[in-house]
Amino acid sequence: MVLDLGSGSGILSIMAAQLGARRVVGVEECGDLVRLSRRNVAANGFEHIVEIHHCVASELEPDELADVLVTETLGTWMTCEGIVQYCEDARWRLLKQGALIIPERGTQYSVLVESAELERLFTPPSYRGIDLSAVMELQDTASCLWSKRLGIRPSDLVYRELCAPFPVLSADFNNTVSDSLPSSQQTCVRTLEGRIHAVLDFWVVEDAQGRQLSTNPRARRCEPWAYARDVAWGNGFHLVAEEPPDDDTRWAVFHDTEVSEVPSGSLSMGANALHVCRGICLYHGHTGFVTRDGKAIFLSCTREEMLNEQRHVLGSTLHVSMEEYGTPGLDPSRPMVPIPMDVADDEKLVVTSLFHSDHRGAQHLLRRIRPEERR
Amino acid sequence: MVLDLGSGSGILSIMAAQLGARRVVGVEECGDLVRLSRRNVAANGFEHIVEIHHCVASELEPDELADVLVTETLGTWMTCEGIVQYCEDARWRLLKQGALIIPERGTQYSVLVESAELERLFTPPSYRGIDLSAVMELQDTASCLWSKRLGIRPSDLVYRELCAPFPVLSADFNNTVSDSLPSSQQTCVRTLEGRIHAVLDFWVVEDAQGRQLSTNPRARRCEPWAYARDVAWGNGFHLVAEEPPDDDTRWAVFHDTEVSEVPSGSLSMGANALHVCRGICLYHGHTGFVTRDGKAIFLSCTREEMLNEQRHVLGSTLHVSMEEYGTPGLDPSRPMVPIPMDVADDEKLVVTSLFHSDHRGAQHLLRRIRPEERR
Repeated sequence: MVLDLGSGSGILSIMAAQLGARRVVGVEECGDLVRLSRRNVAANGFEHIVEIHHCVASELEPDELADVLVTETLGTWMTCEGIVQYCEDARWRLLKQGALIIPERGTQYSVLVESAELERLFTPPSYRGIDLSAVMELQDTASCLWSKRLGIRPSDLVYRELCAPFPVLSADFNNTVSDSLPSSQQTCVRTLEGRIHAVLDFWVVEDAQGRQLSTNPRARRCEPWAYARDVAWGNGFHLVAEEPPDDDTRWAVFHDTEVSEVPSGSLSMGANALHVCRGICLYHGHTGFVTRDGKAIFLSCTREEMLNEQRHVLGSTLHVSMEEYGTPGLDPSRPMVPIPMDVADDEKLVVTSLFHSDHRGAQHLLRRIRPEERR
Repeated sequence: MVLDLGSGSGILSIMAAQLGARRVVGVEECGDLVRLSRRNVAANGFEHIVEIHHCVASELEPDELADVLVTETLGTWMTCEGIVQYCEDARWRLLKQGALIIPERGTQYSVLVESAELERLFTPPSYRGIDLSAVMELQDTASCLWSKRLGIRPSDLVYRELCAPFPVLSADFNNTVSDSLPSSQQTCVRTLEGRIHAVLDFWVVEDAQGRQLSTNPRARRCEPWAYARDVAWGNGFHLVAEEPPDDDTRWAVFHDTEVSEVPSGSLSMGANALHVCRGICLYHGHTGFVTRDGKAIFLSCTREEMLNEQRHVLGSTLHVSMEEYGTPGLDPSRPMVPIPMDVADDEKLVVTSLFHSDHRGAQHLLRRIRPEERR
């Protein structure tokens, strides 16, 4: 029996039947997709082989265990649709010993890229000598941006890789336990000379024979299906900003803040109740913080915005502005405008990738290795 | 004095100062933009000329009337950010007699387009002979889709115009009263031979000298600023489906339904309480309707989804399924799959453009002129 978790249109179930499966059980949570995939199954004459169940995978109680699990529960970020959790649950409850899992393993990669096209897109143009550089404050360097939301077609984007793509997260769908996934990853990379505009994220999954499926834009350039893959999965882009040194006197630093209960109905909370990452406070939400009596007070962000769980990274470092009641970072003489990082040949950078809860995405922080750290 | 409504980054205010304005009053609702535009003004040395007010235009109470109004309150759809209402209010309260308004007038255009690229994007690919055509039911032919949401870059899209672009809405910002804007527009167009995949929407605005600003993708192809305009304003795309004839027995038809109170907390409501357009019921939400005791009952849509005001068009026609308790349109022998329209040279079509409330967008319905209607 072949099990297809997240069967969607039914295409993988139909392919399994076409390849000779005796019985295929598809599982799909969305009622519209269940109905239309049943029509697809019928249109291809496989009603006697393929059955589509309308439930989430964790609710499935099959009458037999599967020999093969196939699942395309992959999103822009490899783990953001829950493939690790689905496979883990299936191994415990739904599969025979030694069942084949397709794909068998996968790796999320990142690469530092230079792209004049990205810079043009995120930088106000020069026109009649007018200086509009303050607009750069709106540039979000704290979040991972999805290409499809931005209208970027990654396979058309002209960019240069300034380092070798590096793995930030790997999973073996035969073995990986979701609780064992790391909450962050540090990578030391060597650069080529250039200007880093963004960290580009893509994934590669493969089966037991090593046949690969990839969202690396390089792998699909000029392919007829590139557009569909751009629009369906897309890629993550993290715009780069060079961080000020740790001893910046404008910020109070709280390392590895603890999780604790946030008082409800209040826009003020203790600094140790916050678990937002440095990038957010420095760039994205930096106008929203002042300190008073040891409390962080939010000026321009609503509590809901600050608590948006997608932005929270456990164990990260909180920077709170030291300027009380002001609008920190908006002093024209010291603008907080993020800028791309210019790097030399063979320079070493540390990339810290902080994973969102449930591994729905990540944020990347780049830091130059200081002379005294070099060997 | 120059008034800049929706001053954003401050660029138009700064340009006005650069061109010699004695005083410029910018008005911006977003606090972040107010702060950064003030920094832009200062960076260009115009603090003594340009002041940015933090309020909505209708709350502005200036100490003098303006000689010139400049406003870039234009969205994907020309009127969707309220330019007609802002200019109307400004003429009454904020401008001197005979003041110059920039832009002075504008027209929203539509054009029927053939595009193999669009068809490929919205059609399941053929693979190993598998029939996935039921997936086409998910194709939304009831809504106007924004290119930037879809990840489409209109200036790169290869398409052929199958008729001359036709105006669907014009406004004279010196005179047009928002209440006088029509709720719908009918246009008769002559076609070139081909397959209509979509209605493409763009606008053109111009000043008193006829200098134009346009979102026609044709006008920006190969221009260096095309990408920015694709991402900033973008274009509307309305995927085309040929409508079944009016005498389709599967639907009960209610013309020009009245607005009345929708009972709260209920997923059932009287048909006369609904004011959704035909396209929604036929295609987009058609699995959500059955009738019972003269009531429309929603199967798969939440009440909030059905009441989403963006989808409501006053005075339009409601089609409600006649099949009680079934899943109308999902009979495999009569699939409700929308298909592009194949047209001949010099064929006549009627395009009905139904405008959303507050003119935030439109929906287009295409109908062939029947032989007995032809002269």
